[in-house]
Amino acid sequence: MKALLRTPSAHSSTAVLAAASSRLRFEDLPPQVVTLARQCLLDVLGTMLAGAREPAARILADFTGAEAAGGPCTLVGMPGTAAASSAALVNGTAGHALDFDDVIGTVGHPSVAVAPAALAVAERTGASGRALLTAFVAGVETQARIAAAVGPAHYARGFHSTATFGSFGAAAAVAHLLGLDTPRTTTALAIAGTQAAGLKAVFGTMSKPLHAGRAAANGVVAGELAVRGFTSADDILGHAQGFAAAESDAFDARALSPSFGDPWHLEEVRFKTHASCFLTHASVNALIALRAQDGFDPGEVAHIGIAVPPGHLDVCGIPEPRTGLEAKFSLTGTAALALVHRRATPDLFTDAATADPAVLVLRERTAVVPDPSLSGPVAEVRVALRDGRELRSAGDMRAPAWTDDPAEQDDALAAKFTGLAEPVLGPERAALVARAVAGLAGLDDVRVLCRQLRA
Amino acid sequence: MKALLRTPSAHSSTAVLAAASSRLRFEDLPPQVVTLARQCLLDVLGTMLAGAREPAARILADFTGAEAAGGPCTLVGMPGTAAASSAALVNGTAGHALDFDDVIGTVGHPSVAVAPAALAVAERTGASGRALLTAFVAGVETQARIAAAVGPAHYARGFHSTATFGSFGAAAAVAHLLGLDTPRTTTALAIAGTQAAGLKAVFGTMSKPLHAGRAAANGVVAGELAVRGFTSADDILGHAQGFAAAESDAFDARALSPSFGDPWHLEEVRFKTHASCFLTHASVNALIALRAQDGFDPGEVAHIGIAVPPGHLDVCGIPEPRTGLEAKFSLTGTAALALVHRRATPDLFTDAATADPAVLVLRERTAVVPDPSLSGPVAEVRVALRDGRELRSAGDMRAPAWTDDPAEQDDALAAKFTGLAEPVLGPERAALVARAVAGLAGLDDVRVLCRQLRA
Repeated sequence: MKALLRTPSAHSSTAVLAAASSRLRFEDLPPQVVTLARQCLLDVLGTMLAGAREPAARILADFTGAEAAGGPCTLVGMPGTAAASSAALVNGTAGHALDFDDVIGTVGHPSVAVAPAALAVAERTGASGRALLTAFVAGVETQARIAAAVGPAHYARGFHSTATFGSFGAAAAVAHLLGLDTPRTTTALAIAGTQAAGLKAVFGTMSKPLHAGRAAANGVVAGELAVRGFTSADDILGHAQGFAAAESDAFDARALSPSFGDPWHLEEVRFKTHASCFLTHASVNALIALRAQDGFDPGEVAHIGIAVPPGHLDVCGIPEPRTGLEAKFSLTGTAALALVHRRATPDLFTDAATADPAVLVLRERTAVVPDPSLSGPVAEVRVALRDGRELRSAGDMRAPAWTDDPAEQDDALAAKFTGLAEPVLGPERAALVARAVAGLAGLDDVRVLCRQLRA
Repeated sequence: MKALLRTPSAHSSTAVLAAASSRLRFEDLPPQVVTLARQCLLDVLGTMLAGAREPAARILADFTGAEAAGGPCTLVGMPGTAAASSAALVNGTAGHALDFDDVIGTVGHPSVAVAPAALAVAERTGASGRALLTAFVAGVETQARIAAAVGPAHYARGFHSTATFGSFGAAAAVAHLLGLDTPRTTTALAIAGTQAAGLKAVFGTMSKPLHAGRAAANGVVAGELAVRGFTSADDILGHAQGFAAAESDAFDARALSPSFGDPWHLEEVRFKTHASCFLTHASVNALIALRAQDGFDPGEVAHIGIAVPPGHLDVCGIPEPRTGLEAKFSLTGTAALALVHRRATPDLFTDAATADPAVLVLRERTAVVPDPSLSGPVAEVRVALRDGRELRSAGDMRAPAWTDDPAEQDDALAAKFTGLAEPVLGPERAALVARAVAGLAGLDDVRVLCRQLRA
């Protein structure tokens, strides 16, 4: 109730960020940011389509359908439609169900909260592809700046940043689509921030993907209430009892810069090309590259050594995975799968493939060594063959694929999308969706795209 | 992702609490607990009915109605119906909009999150009055035990406990109505806990009552997902990255006792008889009593001194309230209003009544003095009259009205309900509702009551 005593200020930390977000125009976006936004949307639509068949998404859809059938918004990869907030809830949960969606180090998974909220409201309002792309960028840039301001102590305390920062990002995107001015965007961020939740304690359960759906829905609710004149805090981020104070131990308001760009945080996005924990990607890449380069047979392998930063063992250190889900969080399990199959696609993360004798034998020959001299999403891999040869390679996920070769990243993401979308939509419609996303900047009405996403 | 490594346990802190909640039967409730539950329900229905006309509730109803019209559940004091989670969202927000709903010291406002969730699901399922009463008690006892276990550090960090503990309480009530066993109730509590949010930074805005609505809706979602087999953490409360660890600095699992009663936390409930901050109640009561007893005229007052625990000034210390809303959080404003009008009913908290010269003059003669020797919701009042007499009285809200005289509390609450409900429902229907709640333990289907609550 102290809040009553505060002086409202147009220059609060939150208002500074809201101004940058609400003023963003498509014309401000450099070409590589538009490309990355398009890639993020294609990628997360793929994970939504495949995720729509996962139990978490099916249960959410059953619940929201039982509550209220119909509405203007697409349930991606499902029959039927829903209200915007329900579609955001279901699609966000589906998009995160496989843990296969994109990553920004400071944020967690950026697209999976922002995109479902933006897509639902863009569909409800019949927005253009440019409006959707701009709102998406506004959302991700907003959440990434909040992540930078609030710092890693938030995640360390136990909060799942994908959910919490995602609520803000989703609200910023929705506010942008609804054309809210700076004060109402400030309010939307506050309504989202006071609803933002998600605890790491639920990792490994269906509630982890629920976080993404709830964040997306929080964003829809926040924008839709703000546009109607609902009120909230002037400075949810910097208030003495606000988001940063309650849920972190640090707050650097300078990260909430008054305009976007310099840097564009979207340039930090990394796409998952393997259906496993992001921290297994460096070693999986290195092993696939070694086998492609040398052509050895898995049966020739005597020993595999994987050196990683020690902290990785807390995240993906399961030594003897028994299920497909556990294998995703196992450096030895993913290494063995990748060497046998030369890939780590979603279809391989089954209990059966995890227990395949060819995989088991390799896993037993694999040792993971924590190396304090390493840091970041990196790995050093050494393969000793029976004939005495030793092959070495290193993987580094800090190096973005898109700067080296944008076309290569486009191709890899197109292949990933096809693999995820075709089983749900069939090859023709999957290709139509990919084409529509590729041409999103020229699309007058995103409802054309959305209709293609229904199963 | 560490969570994958944990060993599921049926004896987690959360499971102990879930067992107590899921096993509670109507037959276990002592008569005074049934009476208090009935009183809580009548009281919060009154604040919902009057609150339905407040802007926060109207905007919520407009939003949810625009999203999806219809559904089986009553929007209290409004036309139309909604899905259970939407009804919980709107009714919870309405119930807290006037800040006039009941209080338990450790919890905040207990009924306003639990009752709307329980009512919506009871209506959807056609539950009996006994089932509703039992579920309501299960919800309040659950949230109060979590409040005791997590401690005051949670509120001190910036979390609005009405929202966060309320999410758990609402989930427990819904789980009880849906007949969930202990493991599924444990899951429902976890789904609610990972969605539980609400920051004190938004106090003084419409987002404060939104917290109650969101908590109620979280409870509906949590129960409805858990009954469908959705999964979540085994121990959301005690997990190393769980609710207590992330959002407090303390956790005393002993407060999560394996059965309810001894004490019944519902016995700590205090009803607001004045439409102002609970911490103004002690001085308002003392002043009304002094005037009733002595019969002096406000014009005879030379000086009023109010001694309170120093912390009260942080909560209701606004010295010169300019609006009706600010007057609710002003010890001087409420004292002046109460002395002039001999009451502090909702109709008095307008900008005009706050600026009434008779009130202003008394306010200027009132001094609030922090007294470090006092603690709790108490006040010592001294009125100096122009003729030299000095009158003294003290108020203490720790003393529950119901133990002194249950019938008197019933009468006071009936009068409060009538004042809130009649302008919305008219006198006949308001009386019907009061009668239905009085006979709730014998009502076969709460839908009979719910239909009477629609405007």
